[in-house]
Amino acid sequence: MLIDGRQYRTIWLAPNKKHVCIIDQRFLPFKFVIRKIHTVGQMVRAIKDMQVRGAPLIGAAAAYGIYLALSEAMKKQRGWDFMEQAFKLLAASRPTAVNLMWALDIQRLQLKKAGNMAEKREHTLQAAEMIAREDVERCRVIGNYGLPLIKKISKQNKGRPVQILTHCNAGALGCIDHGTATAPIYQAHRQGIALNVWVDETRPRNQGRLTAWELRQQGITHTLICDNSGGLLMREGKVDMVIVGADRVAANGDTANKIGTYLKALAAYDNQVPFYVALPIPTIDWSRESGSDIPLEKRDPEEVLCINGLRHGKMQKVRLFGAGSTALNNAFDITPARLITGFITEKGIYKPKDLITLLKSR
Amino acid sequence: MLIDGRQYRTIWLAPNKKHVCIIDQRFLPFKFVIRKIHTVGQMVRAIKDMQVRGAPLIGAAAAYGIYLALSEAMKKQRGWDFMEQAFKLLAASRPTAVNLMWALDIQRLQLKKAGNMAEKREHTLQAAEMIAREDVERCRVIGNYGLPLIKKISKQNKGRPVQILTHCNAGALGCIDHGTATAPIYQAHRQGIALNVWVDETRPRNQGRLTAWELRQQGITHTLICDNSGGLLMREGKVDMVIVGADRVAANGDTANKIGTYLKALAAYDNQVPFYVALPIPTIDWSRESGSDIPLEKRDPEEVLCINGLRHGKMQKVRLFGAGSTALNNAFDITPARLITGFITEKGIYKPKDLITLLKSR
Repeated sequence: MLIDGRQYRTIWLAPNKKHVCIIDQRFLPFKFVIRKIHTVGQMVRAIKDMQVRGAPLIGAAAAYGIYLALSEAMKKQRGWDFMEQAFKLLAASRPTAVNLMWALDIQRLQLKKAGNMAEKREHTLQAAEMIAREDVERCRVIGNYGLPLIKKISKQNKGRPVQILTHCNAGALGCIDHGTATAPIYQAHRQGIALNVWVDETRPRNQGRLTAWELRQQGITHTLICDNSGGLLMREGKVDMVIVGADRVAANGDTANKIGTYLKALAAYDNQVPFYVALPIPTIDWSRESGSDIPLEKRDPEEVLCINGLRHGKMQKVRLFGAGSTALNNAFDITPARLITGFITEKGIYKPKDLITLLKSR
Repeated sequence: MLIDGRQYRTIWLAPNKKHVCIIDQRFLPFKFVIRKIHTVGQMVRAIKDMQVRGAPLIGAAAAYGIYLALSEAMKKQRGWDFMEQAFKLLAASRPTAVNLMWALDIQRLQLKKAGNMAEKREHTLQAAEMIAREDVERCRVIGNYGLPLIKKISKQNKGRPVQILTHCNAGALGCIDHGTATAPIYQAHRQGIALNVWVDETRPRNQGRLTAWELRQQGITHTLICDNSGGLLMREGKVDMVIVGADRVAANGDTANKIGTYLKALAAYDNQVPFYVALPIPTIDWSRESGSDIPLEKRDPEEVLCINGLRHGKMQKVRLFGAGSTALNNAFDITPARLITGFITEKGIYKPKDLITLLKSR
């Protein structure tokens, strides 16, 4: 993605191979901070604190985390206990995004491969790099498949901007590049299709500011709205389609995504607005029959009670609610498959009931 | 309502009759500020800036505003132009709440009554006091009618707390006392029924903090949630009923209320959770056939882009989004009648289709 006119990915190995670089997303849109991650402990912290977030990016981050753990184990002569602990901590860092478990499974296979520690380390590095590289390619192809949907609406609109609503950040920042939900949007923009993206604020962590920031960097027209607004906009005919990402999709098409997605899907259904989920296939968890089998993360209530913003050029945390009030902070919800028009994947667009054919064709 | 153990209303005439006192709600829950309103201009500002808000309270505030305008007109020897201007400015201060127009219509009638200016002024004062007094009584009776709904659920729950979700503040702070949506809750609490109130944050103005504050003052268990969360909670069976207020209801039952209400109504319907609107009858606008005839206020995008919170004991405004992003700030949405289980009014509980009988029985 372009950031201040330069090409970036969200995570990459330093040329010295001793650390991994990430864009620390906690400071966006106000400050562009690149952070060096030297240890698996730092990577666990980066995932937990949402320095990196988004299902595909979390997967890649965990894969690099195992590489860093193995480097540490060699340097400090730690045993397999240390590696087991690394897997455990990474797996527990965010419970909902399945890409994390998927990436860790790939790394387990690397460790089982023949060879000494140095060779195993090289295997895990190659695997992490491949996971990142393949995610970029998957997202690019998702963009190709999603583009015709936008083109078709643009034609129907006779050039009036296509109005696309998105929730949370399923953008380049949530992946390695391109994004999932944003990939078709970026493609359409490059082809000169007029667009406006309705960007949900996405409380409590306000990932809408990430989406707004990256859309602005690519020069795409967008409008920020509160999470409460999408329903009215759809009733008023001001939304042509919804595209969101996913953290985990069950075999039946039920979709775990950022809290509030379900409400937007209900409104889309009620107003006959097409509702698409864009995702790479590793986000599908074939072991879960339906949404009720997916673990849903709860986070610290402080994220509801307080908020970070900019004042006098500095990030400051202000308290939104009075002392003595408690809060509940559900991070994800389930959108039932019946509300979803289609899944935009790197293998094409699938209706919920046809998703299972992807498993059979593996 | 009890505030720090003392009884308060949200608006009252000072004993010297020279000014009106309001609780300035912009500083809650952090600071309890009573503001003196001396002129109609100050009252217009108080309504516009949401120092006072909530449909019933706005109605009473406008009525007092006319009394203050007449006092000013007499003191400064202003003509009828001044009064016409006062009506115009008050009517334009918030466009959606119909109680405002209703209260101004009552005051117009007072001005047409025989008598000199001093007598007319006395009439407008009596009318304003009556509007406030009657609202208290209406809300009290709404509480009586709503109570059995909660009692019934409590019995079904076998004592497990009744879980009630509310959006925005349709509490005592939005009225003169008791509130509309909160009136049945306060009654149930007084009768010892175990409750938990899910309080929607209600971005962008976070009126959830007003609801949380007043519930805490009355000692009622409540849990703050982001506006995104209600859907998941309903899917998980953690909401027994929804009660919200209204800013204007059309003759067919379509309801204008705080932005986001529609999304909660959709989720309630999808999960067979009863969805009630509590309102005094002056909130019904018989001149509007359906929701599409109700004007919906848009407010300053700054309310979306920035937020007020507490830091180091002071209210501070922080910027949530980066420079260069625009926002849209819809203040209200329409919940179609088909999603509403019933209207809790001071005349009883009505299904949407039966609402019209209230007009015929007037």
